[in-house]
Amino acid sequence: MNETKSYKWFHDYLAPHEAHTHGIKAIVFSKQSPFQQIEILETHSYGQCLVLDGKMQSSEADEFIYHEALVHPALLTHPDPRHVLIVGGGEGATLREILRHRSVEKVLMVDIDQEVVEACRAHLPKWHRGAFDDPRTELRFCDARKYLEETDTIYDVIIIDISEPVEEGPAYLLYTREFYQMVTQRLGPSGIISLQAGTTSVIHLLNFSAVCQTLRTSFPTVSPYQAIIPSFGLPWGFALASKNFDPQALTPQEVDRRIAERITGDLHYYDGLLHQGQFILPKHVRVQMEKEERIIEDNQPLFTYN
Amino acid sequence: MNETKSYKWFHDYLAPHEAHTHGIKAIVFSKQSPFQQIEILETHSYGQCLVLDGKMQSSEADEFIYHEALVHPALLTHPDPRHVLIVGGGEGATLREILRHRSVEKVLMVDIDQEVVEACRAHLPKWHRGAFDDPRTELRFCDARKYLEETDTIYDVIIIDISEPVEEGPAYLLYTREFYQMVTQRLGPSGIISLQAGTTSVIHLLNFSAVCQTLRTSFPTVSPYQAIIPSFGLPWGFALASKNFDPQALTPQEVDRRIAERITGDLHYYDGLLHQGQFILPKHVRVQMEKEERIIEDNQPLFTYN
Amino acid sequence: MNETKSYKWFHDYLAPHEAHTHGIKAIVFSKQSPFQQIEILETHSYGQCLVLDGKMQSSEADEFIYHEALVHPALLTHPDPRHVLIVGGGEGATLREILRHRSVEKVLMVDIDQEVVEACRAHLPKWHRGAFDDPRTELRFCDARKYLEETDTIYDVIIIDISEPVEEGPAYLLYTREFYQMVTQRLGPSGIISLQAGTTSVIHLLNFSAVCQTLRTSFPTVSPYQAIIPSFGLPWGFALASKNFDPQALTPQEVDRRIAERITGDLHYYDGLLHQGQFILPKHVRVQMEKEERIIEDNQPLFTYN
Amino acid sequence: MNETKSYKWFHDYLAPHEAHTHGIKAIVFSKQSPFQQIEILETHSYGQCLVLDGKMQSSEADEFIYHEALVHPALLTHPDPRHVLIVGGGEGATLREILRHRSVEKVLMVDIDQEVVEACRAHLPKWHRGAFDDPRTELRFCDARKYLEETDTIYDVIIIDISEPVEEGPAYLLYTREFYQMVTQRLGPSGIISLQAGTTSVIHLLNFSAVCQTLRTSFPTVSPYQAIIPSFGLPWGFALASKNFDPQALTPQEVDRRIAERITGDLHYYDGLLHQGQFILPKHVRVQMEKEERIIEDNQPLFTYN
Repeated sequence: MNETKSYKWFHDYLAPHEAHTHGIKAIVFSKQSPFQQIEILETHSYGQCLVLDGKMQSSEADEFIYHEALVHPALLTHPDPRHVLIVGGGEGATLREILRHRSVEKVLMVDIDQEVVEACRAHLPKWHRGAFDDPRTELRFCDARKYLEETDTIYDVIIIDISEPVEEGPAYLLYTREFYQMVTQRLGPSGIISLQAGTTSVIHLLNFSAVCQTLRTSFPTVSPYQAIIPSFGLPWGFALASKNFDPQALTPQEVDRRIAERITGDLHYYDGLLHQGQFILPKHVRVQMEKEERIIEDNQPLFTYN
Repeated sequence: MNETKSYKWFHDYLAPHEAHTHGIKAIVFSKQSPFQQIEILETHSYGQCLVLDGKMQSSEADEFIYHEALVHPALLTHPDPRHVLIVGGGEGATLREILRHRSVEKVLMVDIDQEVVEACRAHLPKWHRGAFDDPRTELRFCDARKYLEETDTIYDVIIIDISEPVEEGPAYLLYTREFYQMVTQRLGPSGIISLQAGTTSVIHLLNFSAVCQTLRTSFPTVSPYQAIIPSFGLPWGFALASKNFDPQALTPQEVDRRIAERITGDLHYYDGLLHQGQFILPKHVRVQMEKEERIIEDNQPLFTYN
Repeated sequence: MNETKSYKWFHDYLAPHEAHTHGIKAIVFSKQSPFQQIEILETHSYGQCLVLDGKMQSSEADEFIYHEALVHPALLTHPDPRHVLIVGGGEGATLREILRHRSVEKVLMVDIDQEVVEACRAHLPKWHRGAFDDPRTELRFCDARKYLEETDTIYDVIIIDISEPVEEGPAYLLYTREFYQMVTQRLGPSGIISLQAGTTSVIHLLNFSAVCQTLRTSFPTVSPYQAIIPSFGLPWGFALASKNFDPQALTPQEVDRRIAERITGDLHYYDGLLHQGQFILPKHVRVQMEKEERIIEDNQPLFTYN
Repeated sequence: MNETKSYKWFHDYLAPHEAHTHGIKAIVFSKQSPFQQIEILETHSYGQCLVLDGKMQSSEADEFIYHEALVHPALLTHPDPRHVLIVGGGEGATLREILRHRSVEKVLMVDIDQEVVEACRAHLPKWHRGAFDDPRTELRFCDARKYLEETDTIYDVIIIDISEPVEEGPAYLLYTREFYQMVTQRLGPSGIISLQAGTTSVIHLLNFSAVCQTLRTSFPTVSPYQAIIPSFGLPWGFALASKNFDPQALTPQEVDRRIAERITGDLHYYDGLLHQGQFILPKHVRVQMEKEERIIEDNQPLFTYN
């Protein structure tokens, strides 16, 4: 083969006629689970990538951005996070970042798809780095709604790390008002959640603004923020929702102080300055979000393009 | 044709084995000029797009982000911009944004490629919106270095709006230390420049950090910043370089005050809050930039991937 | 651009998940007519190509194969073709090949889409080579069925040179039993027709066998044959249907003799030996065709993939 | 995923700017051997496909065409083939077709790449159908030139079933005058060989005519022929080279008689009629081949595009 030419390509469709296209070096793993098509692809630009139902989930080259952005704002805003629940989180990298917080005593990860977790555990050690074997970790494979209905455990922080709401996919009922109500009932009085919420590209805006609007039905403080994960092809939105503490009340200095005190090892993406910057969305995104009136409900779910 | 299938595709290569891929609705214009391949493509996601040598330059859907990000930080940081020079700027949208500043008395746009400007003037009225006909506008078609060598005009602000430094392309000698020296000599004592400087995606970081480092050889204040232009596929870097005024010294309130006083019409992307946020780069980008030691010179130019 | 990389691609879909993919050098012409999307693309491998509704019709590099294969078997099998009708034939190359026959006194070309013919006349002179200006040529722009219903002219040969039967496309009612009945009524007692009938690739066999079966409802002799036109991506089927003369009764020597006597200039694809070979289909295609029972009718039309 | 959209694609490059593109359902096998990249891909149109160094070798849907076309003309032209050598032949399907000949007593298959053979044996049972376990079969994994230099066995028929001559690939020294000299010395006085020799598409003609010309340095009778294997994207050329017997001297009836007498089971692609037709190449291919003067030699090898 000509060195400048790939002959196998992965098209990550961002819209019906738009894709982020990756030359494939190798297929590391490929399997249809009861819930979704699971693939681990080795790409030229981003190294290994977890792909579910044809959508990029995270890549070796920039998963640190996604996972630091998802975990640390919530845990650092909380004064003393001890018990943490992960909804989803297949790769084990969300778990890894949570376990870096010295205060954390127990993390339960509830993922519906055992085969995703097993594939990541076997093939993506650079992601989990042994986190599944940490004595503070517990794994369960079941529907997160069912778990929340049945448990009476109270959590300090809940991190929702699930794929996008795709029709007939495993995740769409984890984006509704009813689900967030369940979540809030299992949080302590200082409870905080964070989640990824789809792209912030206004051209493609499908669920980011609606998810934030829906969160407001259950939480007094909802703070949308964004991160740039190049392998995703589009800018990505997150939301932190909180019962009591406002993440934007923390100064960069205070965030840096908490990082130094509470987290083991170095962060690569996130620090106090970035904490401040990530909540500043472009004006047109803010305008669009202020106009949003949709509330996502179980019987009126929202589906993203796929 | 099946409605969900495009049969003509534009692959905007971001790396040798990575592309942002756009279904093409129509080719509005296509011509090889003496300097580059010029195309105006109508895409499904982003409407009309200007493409030079196979690289996306700006799109109907999000050109407002690129052009507001390029122009307003520099002009608003300057206390009273009257004379402005554009190096490049083919679409006429940089010109359009500059002309919205009430203080501006004269704008000279120097673009090497008359055919790009004529194509944009004829086919992209949504971009220029009559800016070429404004009595304050002057156009010249020549090499910007040649112009700067020969002129003795002094400018308040110089906006460098050129394509990426491609081997044998028209732009690579407009990214060197020698060029920035020429630029600084044609600026008044409060002079400010801004320019696009390539992607800030660390995986693809080729020239952003080197351009900023090179600017520091000519300017006491260099402020890198970034914007997300979804049609570009990767996050994009800009730099503001200044002889006297520091853009980061302006509060959001002061920026909003200047916008209200000085600019006609509404901005869609940029405001005081965004001004503050745009200078906050992720930690790993800052770390990477601090390590940068390359200075780009005429006899040691830098070429981007194409 | 890297020389080994095209950045605009035409995907000619051969099946839902299969395409023949062509790097596009330039879009020479592009227009939506009342009937179809018309494009003339310049490709790297095949030069200029006429593309209708996203399907390759003929290319500069190998249109000689398609047009010689379509025209000469029918005209040489007829003892003395003087009056010829073309149904379709937009490029003017079918016309060109017919006019090379010295016996031909008059050719009427009936194409529904005047814009296709005008585009080809203006942009594809290598195809028609002045055939539209030959005094023996007459052009009409109307539905071929309407023309056949109203005319009382009798033809020696009718060449059906239309695009594939696509739902809502202009051609599907020109593949039915009722249409072939009209055709046979406008042919003299030695009358012969020929037509392209879709791919002979068994994997993709959609209409070739059904078209041949349908022709048998109107003609005593139906001779399927095939040609390889590389730009089509798949092997291509044709059929010659005849009231009286059997093309396979001609020896290679007799065909070569008729070519020498009747045709001006040299043929590049077709000769007596090839005449013999083209009717020999692979065994599995013959088996498949013998099993075919479908008759295509106006109220039971057949649509190809698109 | 939308059902009409594949998100993994295999581009089989036919030329620098042309590809036959296949939606990938699954990667069944993928490994870099010491000689080449080996992949078994499941595609939508053609089922499982063996792909070496990014080039389609054979597919589930139409491998029967390739292997019948390669094997039977040579074995049926020989009066009594008992000892057969396969050079290459990884899939085991060439072996399978040879073993169907009742006269065959012994087949030696010499393939340089044991990992290809093992992958095919494990994953492509539809190809080999147990042929590797036939008591008449012997396998060796070594360079065919080395084997031919060292052996003193005499063969009735030698089938050369190797990939195209790619620079630094394993096959290019098996297309030279010197190699064919070795081959002819290991053949009996009625000896016959056959081989695949690249595309017959004139637009892409790289080695078909030169291979045939080179064969003429070693064999008195060289009979080029072609077959259409849709998964290859282009028409494909073969050559039969013979010391004594001319395949074109056999009538269709004689071929059919030999098939009935000598071969077990039914053929799907090949019969007496097809035998006759396959040697009839289009006029322009014959003209091109008559002009060919290149002789491929060890120190002047020929490389195909890849």
